[in-house]
Amino acid sequence: MSKLAYLGPRGTFCEAALRLLAPDVEGVPYANVTAALEAARSGTADGAVVPLENSVEGAITQTLDELAWGPPLLITGELLLPVEFTLLVRPGTELAQIKRLTTHPAAHTQCRGFIERELPGAVVVAAASTAGAAQEVAAPGSPYDAAISPAIAGEFYGLTAIASNIGDRSDTVTRFIRVSPPGLLPEPTGADRTSLVAFLQDDHPGALLEMLSEFAVRGVNLTRIESRPTGDGIGHYFFHFDCEGHVSDARVGEAISGLHRLSSDVRFLGSYPRADAVAPQVRRGTADADFAEAADWLSSVRAGRV
Amino acid sequence: MSKLAYLGPRGTFCEAALRLLAPDVEGVPYANVTAALEAARSGTADGAVVPLENSVEGAITQTLDELAWGPPLLITGELLLPVEFTLLVRPGTELAQIKRLTTHPAAHTQCRGFIERELPGAVVVAAASTAGAAQEVAAPGSPYDAAISPAIAGEFYGLTAIASNIGDRSDTVTRFIRVSPPGLLPEPTGADRTSLVAFLQDDHPGALLEMLSEFAVRGVNLTRIESRPTGDGIGHYFFHFDCEGHVSDARVGEAISGLHRLSSDVRFLGSYPRADAVAPQVRRGTADADFAEAADWLSSVRAGRV
Amino acid sequence: MSKLAYLGPRGTFCEAALRLLAPDVEGVPYANVTAALEAARSGTADGAVVPLENSVEGAITQTLDELAWGPPLLITGELLLPVEFTLLVRPGTELAQIKRLTTHPAAHTQCRGFIERELPGAVVVAAASTAGAAQEVAAPGSPYDAAISPAIAGEFYGLTAIASNIGDRSDTVTRFIRVSPPGLLPEPTGADRTSLVAFLQDDHPGALLEMLSEFAVRGVNLTRIESRPTGDGIGHYFFHFDCEGHVSDARVGEAISGLHRLSSDVRFLGSYPRADAVAPQVRRGTADADFAEAADWLSSVRAGRV
Amino acid sequence: MSKLAYLGPRGTFCEAALRLLAPDVEGVPYANVTAALEAARSGTADGAVVPLENSVEGAITQTLDELAWGPPLLITGELLLPVEFTLLVRPGTELAQIKRLTTHPAAHTQCRGFIERELPGAVVVAAASTAGAAQEVAAPGSPYDAAISPAIAGEFYGLTAIASNIGDRSDTVTRFIRVSPPGLLPEPTGADRTSLVAFLQDDHPGALLEMLSEFAVRGVNLTRIESRPTGDGIGHYFFHFDCEGHVSDARVGEAISGLHRLSSDVRFLGSYPRADAVAPQVRRGTADADFAEAADWLSSVRAGRV
Repeated sequence: MSKLAYLGPRGTFCEAALRLLAPDVEGVPYANVTAALEAARSGTADGAVVPLENSVEGAITQTLDELAWGPPLLITGELLLPVEFTLLVRPGTELAQIKRLTTHPAAHTQCRGFIERELPGAVVVAAASTAGAAQEVAAPGSPYDAAISPAIAGEFYGLTAIASNIGDRSDTVTRFIRVSPPGLLPEPTGADRTSLVAFLQDDHPGALLEMLSEFAVRGVNLTRIESRPTGDGIGHYFFHFDCEGHVSDARVGEAISGLHRLSSDVRFLGSYPRADAVAPQVRRGTADADFAEAADWLSSVRAGRV
Repeated sequence: MSKLAYLGPRGTFCEAALRLLAPDVEGVPYANVTAALEAARSGTADGAVVPLENSVEGAITQTLDELAWGPPLLITGELLLPVEFTLLVRPGTELAQIKRLTTHPAAHTQCRGFIERELPGAVVVAAASTAGAAQEVAAPGSPYDAAISPAIAGEFYGLTAIASNIGDRSDTVTRFIRVSPPGLLPEPTGADRTSLVAFLQDDHPGALLEMLSEFAVRGVNLTRIESRPTGDGIGHYFFHFDCEGHVSDARVGEAISGLHRLSSDVRFLGSYPRADAVAPQVRRGTADADFAEAADWLSSVRAGRV
Repeated sequence: MSKLAYLGPRGTFCEAALRLLAPDVEGVPYANVTAALEAARSGTADGAVVPLENSVEGAITQTLDELAWGPPLLITGELLLPVEFTLLVRPGTELAQIKRLTTHPAAHTQCRGFIERELPGAVVVAAASTAGAAQEVAAPGSPYDAAISPAIAGEFYGLTAIASNIGDRSDTVTRFIRVSPPGLLPEPTGADRTSLVAFLQDDHPGALLEMLSEFAVRGVNLTRIESRPTGDGIGHYFFHFDCEGHVSDARVGEAISGLHRLSSDVRFLGSYPRADAVAPQVRRGTADADFAEAADWLSSVRAGRV
Repeated sequence: MSKLAYLGPRGTFCEAALRLLAPDVEGVPYANVTAALEAARSGTADGAVVPLENSVEGAITQTLDELAWGPPLLITGELLLPVEFTLLVRPGTELAQIKRLTTHPAAHTQCRGFIERELPGAVVVAAASTAGAAQEVAAPGSPYDAAISPAIAGEFYGLTAIASNIGDRSDTVTRFIRVSPPGLLPEPTGADRTSLVAFLQDDHPGALLEMLSEFAVRGVNLTRIESRPTGDGIGHYFFHFDCEGHVSDARVGEAISGLHRLSSDVRFLGSYPRADAVAPQVRRGTADADFAEAADWLSSVRAGRV
């Protein structure tokens, strides 16, 4: 039976994502993103599930930088997980009894409305993670009465949910990715995404515009772009790109080959089914059949048959 | 005498930046970026100094989001501060006596080489900030023998530096900005930078390329671009731009007006002298004189004088 | 009463165009385009009507070059005239009696089907113009029995049309322009066209792409582009552009000002109502109101009001 | 021995070009460009030499349209021929005896200075071509004393040159091309040119910009662009392009394949050595080796080797 590393401790949103992405696989929690990815690289696990971005907090920069700089891994799947916070207590605790509450500061921020309304007198203490908060509440002699955590954390730590989906906005989403050691890519499904990292050849003005043009001219839409520092001083960046389509698509292949020629380095991070299953709009002249027909035409032309 | 809020506690790199940016001004530490900026907005302080990006860690997203979403502030200056870590001890402590060390995890990561080499047996405990670590070492009955902190923290907490510039790489830099309530902009110096935030009108493919084209066609170079989530779900972003030049430059004014027409919203964040004093290369036909001459020509043409 | 010069002799399509463009004005025929335009420049006439392009033959290069290099004139109107050929004879001549036919070679080419079908045995002799052919048929002792000419030529030379619209294709069109000495431009009508000529600053690769980008980024559609030699050797060209809109439109003004800044020279040739009265599709953010709003925003921003 | 058709009559600049392009080949004059190209298509000749453009007059539109619409031919060579006019007389005639002069009107225009200076009283009569003018002077009982013609016409018609290079400007050049029936292309020389014709898929604004982008993004420089009417009414054009490089170059092949995908039709007109032997500047990342390396990289990536 295979194993996947994930960002622990037990009971995190990341574990919830893993269960949905790979229901039959054993998850192994790691203390941080780097450790989880390292487990996938070393073969200790068969892969890993880690967060990539959140619709409120933005990119998980540790994941971006690990994928860019560490030994190569391939993204083989993604999941969009709604961030739903649950109020967990030891069995028997009632809402009115909650005096001391613990959670991660980001969760505190996102549940501010609920806390003011329902727990106006409670003291809120910062925890290292929302799952860790649940763990602390469950610990014998805990100084806390409740935790704001993922629902899944309740299961692990034997806590009871006395309020669900208590975030101030209900549409916050985290995008998780499954990564694997280099090997076969997922088959194209017709609704895929491709991720990569590009380092500029030289840092001239207009370099980013040139990069984007490689995609645009082949009709490949970008769905995400993140700049990250190269470490060589302020003003020097590299770029994470997500685009529509699979690297086996002719237009995607030609676009990223163009990017590769233009860049000092391009790291391919994978092609994998989109979690939202949205098929790309393929612009006139950029379907695989169009590329094949153009290649035939070019062969004829080069042979002087016109 | 005026006062500037900054990211505290006392002894942070941010305070060091403030002393260089505004030597004669009193600094007032605040617990976080939001609080420091709020002090500038409310008039409690006359402005604030906060970090914007680091050459290794990347953007300070809290600062980016505060500038984009909070009540408007103007960036009026910037500073590039080398991140130099110092080993601070209570007077009389020697290197060999250091058993327990505290610092912020990022500093721990960046000084790993020094610690392994010089303090191989020391236990390292995480602190909330590098300045806070110094504060803890200075506290009566502290469980720590030393802190890795900015040099400035030594002054405040009465500690002695027994090793300087102990980071593994010596070129890490943090970019700090000074912000002020809306009001007069700094005069152009010939080597300025302009910052702004743009929200897409609609999220169509190619929208970013269109935005960059508004700059490119007027010969305005971008020096930084950051995408941030709008909060409306994965796949929806807004953009921070830094470009060369001052908003009073004709080419910059026309470019950002073009961006404004194209976008659902553009927030101007300020024009201010570049810390590196690098003057932009002004492309043929894009100097103020060229714009003035073209405006005269257009007036003639519109009047039928050709 | 005012007078307009036109490309003669009497009875040309150009005269037909003049009658439609300016029904109440006296037309004065000139031997060639240069002479007609010179009459407009010198004040001998109040303006001129000349052909600019034909939907089969293409640009009238003499007109393009005169407008680019000669003393400035403004285009103040245009007309699209269907090219309809008529078979003209002296009164009393019947089809079966036509043995010798004269016309301009282009008309011969375009009426080949009719001639083969209806006049299979006729000898066709080349004339200098279709109107001139009619003139020759009308001359006493003419060696010709018939001319292929514009219908209007029949009136002038007292000839009878015995077959009309005899061209092989019925959709050929010539675009005529009315030019005037520099002075007030025609008022915008909402469906206008603007013409200009641009000379490159230097002849670098990508220069044309840059020129087109000045239009594209302001949402101004080009309707025609012609390259013409500068005279400085093969490989050196200047460009005629027609674009949608009136120079008084903000987007057109900014686009051509951008072109002006980029070019060594731009000659404005006029803004005038489109013959087809097609109003442009105004792209989001490029209407006059959008420019005005952006200008207000920029003023505020420059004053530090954000 | 092979034969090449050319634009006659004997003694034209076109014949002079043919002698330089193919010294050992028999030239056969044809009355016009269409007839010369038809001879090459039908096999009556082995190819043809025709003018393509002139540095003062511009494109030879008959050649452009024949290449675009007629049965396919391949351009296999080009020549830049200085246009040098010679004053030809029957042996014994002296300058002072010249009363009646004949030449083509374009030559008349271009030698106006010489005529005013040296032959102020002479009557100038228009001929159908400069070579034809020489032919008329040589005819028994000719009403003309002299012709302005290419030097080569003197040889054929037994005339004497009494003044050489009499044009007002000395740098006028005509570009001639050699065309052949479809077959093997000329080998790449490192300094080649590629010609093609593209018809738009649909006539949307920005279509030309898209076409140019296909070249620009692969670093292929255009050296000529001509618009020609499609015949479907004013406002509908197709385009002739000349670009640097040979179709066997990876960058050129990919660029024109991209153009092909984008267009309703692209006709390849040939790759052939540049007359000026100027090698293209190959932009970073666009040499054949860069394309080959990128193709290898893409294969690895598609196989999951990263």
